Amino acid sequence: MPDPALRIDVVCAIPQILTSVLENSIVGRARTSGLVTIVTHNLHDYGHDRFKHIDDTPYGGGAGMILECGPIFECIESLQSERTYDDVIYLCPDGEVLTQDMCNALSIQRNLILLCGHYKGIDQRIRDVLVTREISVGDYVLTGGELAAAVLVDAVVRLVPGAISDAESLLEDSFMTGLLDAPHYTKPAEFRGLRVPEVLTSGNHAAIKKWRQEQALKKTQERRPDLLP
Amino acid sequence: MPDPALRIDVVCAIPQILTSVLENSIVGRARTSGLVTIVTHNLHDYGHDRFKHIDDTPYGGGAGMILECGPIFECIESLQSERTYDDVIYLCPDGEVLTQDMCNALSIQRNLILLCGHYKGIDQRIRDVLVTREISVGDYVLTGGELAAAVLVDAVVRLVPGAISDAESLLEDSFMTGLLDAPHYTKPAEFRGLRVPEVLTSGNHAAIKKWRQEQALKKTQERRPDLLP
Repeated sequence: MPDPALRIDVVCAIPQILTSVLENSIVGRARTSGLVTIVTHNLHDYGHDRFKHIDDTPYGGGAGMILECGPIFECIESLQSERTYDDVIYLCPDGEVLTQDMCNALSIQRNLILLCGHYKGIDQRIRDVLVTREISVGDYVLTGGELAAAVLVDAVVRLVPGAISDAESLLEDSFMTGLLDAPHYTKPAEFRGLRVPEVLTSGNHAAIKKWRQEQALKKTQERRPDLLP
Repeated sequence: MPDPALRIDVVCAIPQILTSVLENSIVGRARTSGLVTIVTHNLHDYGHDRFKHIDDTPYGGGAGMILECGPIFECIESLQSERTYDDVIYLCPDGEVLTQDMCNALSIQRNLILLCGHYKGIDQRIRDVLVTREISVGDYVLTGGELAAAVLVDAVVRLVPGAISDAESLLEDSFMTGLLDAPHYTKPAEFRGLRVPEVLTSGNHAAIKKWRQEQALKKTQERRPDLLP
């Protein structure tokens, strides 16, 4: 089996959140077939006292707990002593907002570390010194970075050559062409009186292609004019 | 135990992706304590032939498979015969982009259906007739809607009163104040020569509050000027 094309190390407080995401569907199959390596690391294994605690209250007061420098520095430096990483990505709501273009670029990297916050966040010194890139999966707050890491892993791994058998399908996805995807229909041609648009059953491939392009443009103009040049 | 504040039914092709997300951390505890009810429904249980197939090729040709009308109509209509739903939400990359304000509004609903696409998507007639709202968790394509549903569930459930013990923490989150969150620090005060900003250890609460407001504004101006009024 050749070396995996992409290795992702996920450093987090609750790796068990990720189990079912990493074991199923396209990500699960890409791991089993050796296309990608994804390893989770539990920060509690790097906790210093006998309770393996990894967080403490914020300086200056206020609600919530902050992940400490020690366990995160030790975990990430231990990984960096084994191989060179393209990026140490911190998942956080105030990072650069993830786009399909960023996923495309990440899918051709070799080694990535994804660092997940939890509770109120992580000590700023980790962000200043260790983290090379900060990414947000959207303008909302999640319980922890684990789910954000799952989203990034899924969006990136499906783009690794071989992960999806039908590569043509990828190229028609929303955002790949710069437009939202056109409507799709499958059998039956009539369902409770609702019929499939006639052009799609016409067998006229030029007309079908034209209809799909028009529909994709119309939907993008209506819903997301910000995506248009 | 009082009635749960919020019920979410997730209708999808691969419910096992969601298992570890729904069983752990704040979402897991909110379910165990009866604050929320979350039920997953496997579309394959509504497949019609002996192979329980739920998808077919697209009319007009092209790559990918499309989820059929029959199983999805039957599953959702069966749920709607039992209670009234505020919304049937289809998770898709061409939907309205999820924001914290939308999560806040969804957290005070009673009953929600989340419909997940998979493969190439779902038959457009389902979107035309059954779906009342279309939401995207971000401008990127995922393997399926399951992970998008997990994100929406997590972002919404943590806002249900009682899900997070320290409600004050919520109010300081990024986006809640319209600004990104200020930097946080925890012990030790010096780590490998890196010191916590002096103001945070000063005990001067007015100065700390002012520093945090300035930092939040500065970060938002630098990273996300689009969020400012």
